[in-house]
Amino acid sequence: MTSQGWQFGDYPGATEDHLHNYRYMHEIYTHHDPDYTGRATVPVLWDKKTGAMVNNESADIIRMLNSSFGAFSNNSVDLYPASLQREIDQLNKYYYDNFNNGVYRAGFATSQEAYDEAYEQVFAALDQIEERLAAKGPYVFGEQLTETDVRLFVTLVRFDAAYHGIFKCNKKRISDYPNISTYLKRLYALPGISETVDFDHIKAGYYSLGNLNPNGIIPRGPEIDLVA
Amino acid sequence: MTSQGWQFGDYPGATEDHLHNYRYMHEIYTHHDPDYTGRATVPVLWDKKTGAMVNNESADIIRMLNSSFGAFSNNSVDLYPASLQREIDQLNKYYYDNFNNGVYRAGFATSQEAYDEAYEQVFAALDQIEERLAAKGPYVFGEQLTETDVRLFVTLVRFDAAYHGIFKCNKKRISDYPNISTYLKRLYALPGISETVDFDHIKAGYYSLGNLNPNGIIPRGPEIDLVA
Repeated sequence: MTSQGWQFGDYPGATEDHLHNYRYMHEIYTHHDPDYTGRATVPVLWDKKTGAMVNNESADIIRMLNSSFGAFSNNSVDLYPASLQREIDQLNKYYYDNFNNGVYRAGFATSQEAYDEAYEQVFAALDQIEERLAAKGPYVFGEQLTETDVRLFVTLVRFDAAYHGIFKCNKKRISDYPNISTYLKRLYALPGISETVDFDHIKAGYYSLGNLNPNGIIPRGPEIDLVA
Repeated sequence: MTSQGWQFGDYPGATEDHLHNYRYMHEIYTHHDPDYTGRATVPVLWDKKTGAMVNNESADIIRMLNSSFGAFSNNSVDLYPASLQREIDQLNKYYYDNFNNGVYRAGFATSQEAYDEAYEQVFAALDQIEERLAAKGPYVFGEQLTETDVRLFVTLVRFDAAYHGIFKCNKKRISDYPNISTYLKRLYALPGISETVDFDHIKAGYYSLGNLNPNGIIPRGPEIDLVA
């Protein structure tokens, strides 16, 4: 994270903007809409043919990729099957409020009370996940992999590397939860997943938040092994 | 820690200055020497009879308490027995450089390189302690409790609560080292020790370092149990 927000390239292993050769994400937003003055967030789904942004909300993008890109894929995974949609929506909301967004509320809290509340919610959600996996595994809806798992994965995989330290979500580590640890490794082993994870990028990204980490030093730990 | 340095009282469970009713440690130093302008550090050994400071260096104070206060004590513990003094001095130096002071060098590093080096030294020392205890326990010099154990205790007991997070010594927690964990509980169980430990004070103290933790929020975790 820079003073100009999200930046392409300029870090080992980081990707350039191969389409427009832009340096900052905000240039992508103004390319799409020259009058745009809001925050330039990630992720973004971009349509090369029309030269326009399709969506910039991660939950929407997951759903779009699941429902509208079958023609470009050779598999038949359905992460949002009709029979589970209602339950998926409910569980997504609970996990978003308490876990995915809970870690951010803990980390960016400006009062001890707000932090304390978010911290308790984060670990209540982790306790719930741990129990749910024990009862229903291997995925949160049993044998069926769903977008709920994908959404949990992104927060779980960063947890010990980043949220535990810089966001002070330090009651336990994910590695202290036996069922969640096994589940995280199971998700990480799915085709195409591990290639999306770079712990150096995760740590460098979060520890570049100057208001939380003024000296900018990036922790070397913890030891994380999602393959063993 | 305040803008005026170490402060008495004014925090749940903190002790007042019952002798002079001072508010800041620097007042103790100028009471002893009105011309004193150096740093007002802790601990301090104070002589009530002469109204003067005896010493302000923790390693010296441990040794003074061991050698010169037998008349005020009903036990015959000798933490610095003649037969081990040379080995104790050597091991104390190694642990001080790499562990007791190593965590501070990691935490207060102003370059990634200085932090990385200190981090590696801290965990090399912990690996050494873990192996030494396996070979020689129950204490680092076997059956004989020494000042080396006392000096290790103070850093070990704060490690998971403070250094792991705010000083980024996060390769492992003490609770990840089986022999050190047992050893730490053994020391904690010695008469008079657990009364000196207040995890709220440890966390509130370190997380009041504004240059490392600008928002001042104190982590609720981790869960620590030195009794089980």
